[in-house]
Amino acid sequence: MIISTISSTATEGACEERISLMTRRLVVVGGNAGGLTAASQARYRVGPDELEIVAFERGNYASYSSCGIPFFVSDAIDDIDRLVVRTPDEFRDRQAIEVRIEHDVIAIDTARRVVTVVDRASSGGDEYEAPFDALVIATGAVPRRLDVPGAEGGGVFGVQTLDDGVRVRDYVHEVQPASAVIVGGGYIGLELAEALLHRGLSVTLVEAGPQPMSTLDPDMGELVADALRHAGAALVLSTTVSAVDRDSDGHVCGVVAGDATVAAELVVFGLGTHPNGELARLAGIAVGETGGIVTDRRMRTRTEGVWAAGDCVETLHLVSGRPVAVALGTHATKQGRVAGIDIAGGHAAFPGVLGTAVTRICDLEIGRTGLNAREAEQAGFEFETYSADATTRAGYLPNAEPIRTKFVIERAGGRVLGAQICGGRGAAKRIDTMAVAITRGVTVDELLVMDLGYAPPLAPTWDPLLVTARRAVDQRARAS
Amino acid sequence: MIISTISSTATEGACEERISLMTRRLVVVGGNAGGLTAASQARYRVGPDELEIVAFERGNYASYSSCGIPFFVSDAIDDIDRLVVRTPDEFRDRQAIEVRIEHDVIAIDTARRVVTVVDRASSGGDEYEAPFDALVIATGAVPRRLDVPGAEGGGVFGVQTLDDGVRVRDYVHEVQPASAVIVGGGYIGLELAEALLHRGLSVTLVEAGPQPMSTLDPDMGELVADALRHAGAALVLSTTVSAVDRDSDGHVCGVVAGDATVAAELVVFGLGTHPNGELARLAGIAVGETGGIVTDRRMRTRTEGVWAAGDCVETLHLVSGRPVAVALGTHATKQGRVAGIDIAGGHAAFPGVLGTAVTRICDLEIGRTGLNAREAEQAGFEFETYSADATTRAGYLPNAEPIRTKFVIERAGGRVLGAQICGGRGAAKRIDTMAVAITRGVTVDELLVMDLGYAPPLAPTWDPLLVTARRAVDQRARAS
Repeated sequence: MIISTISSTATEGACEERISLMTRRLVVVGGNAGGLTAASQARYRVGPDELEIVAFERGNYASYSSCGIPFFVSDAIDDIDRLVVRTPDEFRDRQAIEVRIEHDVIAIDTARRVVTVVDRASSGGDEYEAPFDALVIATGAVPRRLDVPGAEGGGVFGVQTLDDGVRVRDYVHEVQPASAVIVGGGYIGLELAEALLHRGLSVTLVEAGPQPMSTLDPDMGELVADALRHAGAALVLSTTVSAVDRDSDGHVCGVVAGDATVAAELVVFGLGTHPNGELARLAGIAVGETGGIVTDRRMRTRTEGVWAAGDCVETLHLVSGRPVAVALGTHATKQGRVAGIDIAGGHAAFPGVLGTAVTRICDLEIGRTGLNAREAEQAGFEFETYSADATTRAGYLPNAEPIRTKFVIERAGGRVLGAQICGGRGAAKRIDTMAVAITRGVTVDELLVMDLGYAPPLAPTWDPLLVTARRAVDQRARAS
Repeated sequence: MIISTISSTATEGACEERISLMTRRLVVVGGNAGGLTAASQARYRVGPDELEIVAFERGNYASYSSCGIPFFVSDAIDDIDRLVVRTPDEFRDRQAIEVRIEHDVIAIDTARRVVTVVDRASSGGDEYEAPFDALVIATGAVPRRLDVPGAEGGGVFGVQTLDDGVRVRDYVHEVQPASAVIVGGGYIGLELAEALLHRGLSVTLVEAGPQPMSTLDPDMGELVADALRHAGAALVLSTTVSAVDRDSDGHVCGVVAGDATVAAELVVFGLGTHPNGELARLAGIAVGETGGIVTDRRMRTRTEGVWAAGDCVETLHLVSGRPVAVALGTHATKQGRVAGIDIAGGHAAFPGVLGTAVTRICDLEIGRTGLNAREAEQAGFEFETYSADATTRAGYLPNAEPIRTKFVIERAGGRVLGAQICGGRGAAKRIDTMAVAITRGVTVDELLVMDLGYAPPLAPTWDPLLVTARRAVDQRARAS
């Protein structure tokens, strides 16, 4: 066990039970995927007699999937509780983990090994200190905000928390807005655009960049734009929002985008997030250039006895070698698992990410991993790009759909640095094949002879990935 | 150019034009994917003035997808020509490749460098010799036959060639059989069972082994059996067919399977294939223990100036290190590509296979790669198996479907030796991720932290592959 025996006496308020001097205590700041996975993994290995576990969550829900919010807004899921993986009661009863919702940790004292907590559910907003032997910081990410006139108030929403999701859906149900503007063309913004189109709203996407989904190269992003237009969305690109318009009653009636005003009774900001490293920084815990908390592979921060996991940390990009902050539930749970195992004295490691992302927007499946052209440039690679069109299954079958695959290749040697895919059903998760290939330094020549599955209803004779690999190999052979 | 200048004068019959003494000649035996891809690749690099290319095909069709036959039988494809990649006219006009259908190569003389051809389209079955400088043998595979009474004659079919496909479908259209027996539970047999179920026939599958799809472990094969039964097929397992019954008019009326007779007006043998290495063997070209022609990585046989590609060759299994014969269009085209490039003086290599296979049977997607438990045992590995159930997408979405993933793991070190997947939509092609992992020697610990794509409509937070990896890692950690 890494956790040292508790040395300070409990200094907590009345609502806090005294803990045994022999029981060590793990405190988790943030009841999200990263924090609660760490708690669960620690508990899985250490019983409640040896380790008390308390998690503080500022919001009303703990342990939920925020990626599921668009599907709640679209009515694909009718009950918000379906997005909740586990309730506080379940954590207590099944795992002896105490999850206190509406409890906000406002300070960490690493010297005294206590956190300061505000109980927002109490009438007076009671404040108390809670001691820890081990601390997991899982403060998540903060939505990027656009500080423009009119943005504060009803009818304007973020999509970060389950509470946000409930608010958007309630508003759609109650106000029945006819039109919406989504500000920001990232994954969640696009998924929400689709959800609102599905509900019959007229939807306009306003994006500051020249294309939706800036993690794709422009030619691939154009396919996403086409899919959105085809589904009925209007796109206003290379344009920033300067104000939210409200009528004399204060109701949202539009956004000012560039020189024009786009009518909207509902505005959603989906501008992405940045890591919430502020609480850690104030406590003297190292935060990196991305704003995310710095950890090693075992999710230890640079402060003894303090771990961090999830959207609040920065991690290593395995191709560029640079620190990146990627807010994604799958990383959060993997990192939480590693932190929990490490706290319990086991061994596990989280080596980094490739920036893999998949989504489906209006029948178009999208996948990307590794470096896109801009990122390869920034990381100082000499590279080439190759793309090819194919079909998701044998072209002679009636439901074969187009798919385009693009690779970023290191010029010398032909190592694959990144891949992007847009196409019909079955397109997106092909990116996983490329994620493993990139992780293992596979070249296009090596990829070309990989034994990928072939059967007419699932793939053409040459899988779309191999069609692009073949093009790269052929063109590189001709050039040499 | 590897091809030596032609040294013998043409000794061919009247139907054969004289070729220039300065033009080298590539002869391809077999107008299938392997042979014609080799021809196309050679042509892509060497013009007709330098290289004449002639391919002989015994059947009525060249360059087609035999894997598409079940979809023609099911009526998913209404025109057999859709399965034909390129017609002889197209080969001639676009690539200056002469494809002679209904021409059967009956002998190869490697010393005199001629093949003996029978023109089955001619009234007398004209026989002539055709010289070659380079030869590609692409004689394909031979369906395994069950030599039982009654198997010869109408109503009993194989499913190897497009001609077979046309015959089955014509029979279904004309005779309108109410019931069918499929003998053999391999991929094509199962796909054909589904096609006939789709057409309203009552279908019984008779399989000598204890489960359909013997390339899966029994527990996974059971899922396939369940899917078939659910779709309405009857299964007769661990039973061999000893006779085909015919009525007094000679019409098929059933098969004798074990002690019982199963009524059937249509019988299809789908017992798999073995490599057609006979022509090569008779010519003194090396054939291996699998019956397939032996080649190196460049698809050269052990006889100078003779290449082989496709279902007629044996290749290296990349995990077991043993020679295997796998009849699959994707290998055939890759091998043909390598042969054609090598013939043209370029460089390419086909290193071997993993036995990757995917299919979809009655809404169940199936994938496998590497070694199954039996194969791992035979190859002398100390191994463990792990499997886990998950969902194809986030469990809270209404269309999440079950998926089971199973890994075969080398005990020391945890390297993945094989993987099997059965599940709903999106399950099968996840096997490609494992194919790359296995090719690159990835361990379960390494797999667990791979950055695979996550988004609710496409995958749960932990991809099903990672759920199984996590189980393996956790159980191995506990055992150590």
